Amino acid sequence: MPTNRQIILDTVPTDKLTPGHFRQSEGPMPSPADGELLLKTRIVSIDAAARAWMQGPTYRPAVLAGDVMAGYGLAEVVESRSPAFRPGDLVFVETGWQDYSVQPASAATKAGSAEPLSHLISIYGVAGLTAYFGLLECGQPKAGETVLVSAAAGAVGSIVGQIAKIKGCRAVGIAGGADKCAILTDELSYDAAVDYKAFGEDLRSLGRAVAEACGGGANVYFDNVGGSMFDVAMFCMANQGRVVCCGSLASYDGPRRGVMTVPGLVVVKRLTLKGFIVTDYYGGRDAAVAELKGWVESGQLKVREDVIDGLENLPDALIGLLAGGNIGKRMVKVA
Amino acid sequence: MPTNRQIILDTVPTDKLTPGHFRQSEGPMPSPADGELLLKTRIVSIDAAARAWMQGPTYRPAVLAGDVMAGYGLAEVVESRSPAFRPGDLVFVETGWQDYSVQPASAATKAGSAEPLSHLISIYGVAGLTAYFGLLECGQPKAGETVLVSAAAGAVGSIVGQIAKIKGCRAVGIAGGADKCAILTDELSYDAAVDYKAFGEDLRSLGRAVAEACGGGANVYFDNVGGSMFDVAMFCMANQGRVVCCGSLASYDGPRRGVMTVPGLVVVKRLTLKGFIVTDYYGGRDAAVAELKGWVESGQLKVREDVIDGLENLPDALIGLLAGGNIGKRMVKVA
Repeated sequence: MPTNRQIILDTVPTDKLTPGHFRQSEGPMPSPADGELLLKTRIVSIDAAARAWMQGPTYRPAVLAGDVMAGYGLAEVVESRSPAFRPGDLVFVETGWQDYSVQPASAATKAGSAEPLSHLISIYGVAGLTAYFGLLECGQPKAGETVLVSAAAGAVGSIVGQIAKIKGCRAVGIAGGADKCAILTDELSYDAAVDYKAFGEDLRSLGRAVAEACGGGANVYFDNVGGSMFDVAMFCMANQGRVVCCGSLASYDGPRRGVMTVPGLVVVKRLTLKGFIVTDYYGGRDAAVAELKGWVESGQLKVREDVIDGLENLPDALIGLLAGGNIGKRMVKVA
Repeated sequence: MPTNRQIILDTVPTDKLTPGHFRQSEGPMPSPADGELLLKTRIVSIDAAARAWMQGPTYRPAVLAGDVMAGYGLAEVVESRSPAFRPGDLVFVETGWQDYSVQPASAATKAGSAEPLSHLISIYGVAGLTAYFGLLECGQPKAGETVLVSAAAGAVGSIVGQIAKIKGCRAVGIAGGADKCAILTDELSYDAAVDYKAFGEDLRSLGRAVAEACGGGANVYFDNVGGSMFDVAMFCMANQGRVVCCGSLASYDGPRRGVMTVPGLVVVKRLTLKGFIVTDYYGGRDAAVAELKGWVESGQLKVREDVIDGLENLPDALIGLLAGGNIGKRMVKVA
C-alpha cells in the first residue's frame, strides 16, 4: 500500500518564511465517500499568494499551524465515487502538499491536455489566465500604449509583457538582477527592462530609470508586488493610466510598508486602479486558453517554466520563490 | 481711484499653515491689454486643494513665496477688451486673493445667474459638480447600495450624501464632531453618521463603528481625505466596491502617512479606485447644473453654505477649513 507523505505548516511565520516552519509527516491513505475522489498529486503550483494565506483569511480561509500546507495543482483520479470522473482523469484541484488527497468531485475541474503537461499549470493555468485577463480585461491596453510590469520575469510577468507586445504595445519590465533583465529583452519580447536591485535603496534613481524606460509615461501598470515599487510606478504613470492590482508580493513575506502615492497621485493623474482575482473571469476561460494556445503554437508567446522535482522540495521551492529565485512559472513535480 | 488689496503667500509652509505665512499688501490697479478683462473679485471659493498648491505643481503650477495667493471664484467684469464680455458680466475665473485682477478673456467662463449668488460657488460650482460627477460617473452607485462619504459635512460631502439618497442608496457619513454628525442625519439626508473625533487614535474602534453603520459593507466610498481614514474605509468595503478618489485633505496640511491597504485589499475585494478632477467632466456641465437645480428647487437637495465677509479674512478662512471648521461650502465675500 502506498504511503501518503504530507508537508505540514508547523508554525505560522510572523516574519520571513523558513524551512523550520514546515515539517514532513506521513498521513493515512484517505478513502473517498460517495461523491468524492481519491486523487494522486502530480504537479503542485508554487505561488507567492501561498505566503499570504498564512497571514489570515483572504479569498480562502487561512492556513493554520498543523494544517497540511495548501496548494493548487494537477492531480490524477485514482478512485472515483462520482459518475463525472474516471480513474486516470487529470483534474485541477487544491491537492495540498501531499501525495494523496480526497476531494469532493465538485471541487475538481477536468484538465484538458497539453504537451508538456506542465503547460496546464503555467500558460494554460492560473499564471497564464491571470496575465491574460488582468492585462486585457482590467488593463485595457490600446495599441501604441506603454505597459509597465513589475516582477516581470515571474510566472505572470513573463507572460504579461508578451501579450502586451502581441497587442501592439510597448512593454517595460522591472525585475531583480541583470540575468533576469537580459531574459526579458532577449527572450520574452520586452522592449526595455530595469534591474531594481542595481539601485539598492535609492528609489529616486530607480524611479528616474523606470520613467526613462517608459518614455512618455506608462499607460498601464501591471502590479505584482505592491510596496515601494508601487510608489515608484505611480510616479511613472501617464494621466488616465490604469493600474492592474494583481498581488502584493512585497507585503507577503516581511513587514508591510505604506503606499505614499494613494490617493494623491490617483487624483492628480486621474488613474484607475483595479483589483482582480482570476477566477472571477473563468466564464471566459475556454476562449482565453484557445487564444493563448494559438499564440504559443505560432511561436509568438514563449513559455518559461521552472520545474522542481520531489514533494520534499516544496518548502524550499516556495521560500525561494518569495526571494525571487524563479524565472517563469515555478512548480513542483510530485509524481 | 480704488485700491487693489492683495494677500501674498509670504513663505511656503513646511508643516501646518498659519496666518504668519501670509501678508497683506497693496498692489497697483492692473490695466487690461487687448483680449483681456479687468475684473473685480466678488466671491472667492475656499478649497482645501489650495494647501496642496503650495506643495508643488499638481494640475496647476505651484504657488510660490511672493505670489498673490491663488484662488478661484466669481468676479465682475469692470472693463472688457474682448468682444465676448461686457462690463457687469459675472464670470468664473482664477481671481487670486485680491480686489482686482487682469485675466485673458479666454480664462474666464460666463457664470449663469442664481439666487443667492453664492450658489454659483457652492451647489452650481466646483463643489456641486465634484459631488455630482464624482459620485455618479466614478462611483456608479446603484439603488439599494451603500455609499460611504468622508468629510461628509464639507462642501462636497454635504452634497454627495444627498445625491446618493436621491438615487435610492443608503448614505453613511464620517465627520468630526457630534454637531456635524447631527446635521448630517437631521438636515442632509444621511442615514447614519460616525463622529471620528470621538475615537481619538483608536482606529480599530472607529473601523468597527463605520462597518456597523455600513451594514453589509460600502459599495461606494467617496474619499475626500486619504490618510488613515482611507484605510479604515477600505476595511469596510464590500467586494467589487468602487472608491472615488476626490482629494487627500489629510496629507495637504501635515505629514503624509502611508496607506497600508493598497494594493492588498484592492486585490482581495476586487475594488476599483478612480481618481478624478471635475474639469474633465465639464462637457456635461450644463446638464448637470440643470439636474442639480431641479433637486434644489424641489427641496430634495439642501444647500449648506459658510460665507465669510471680507478679503482680510481669507487666510483665516482657509486655515480654519483645513482644521475642519466649516460646515458646507466655505467662501469669502470680497465685494
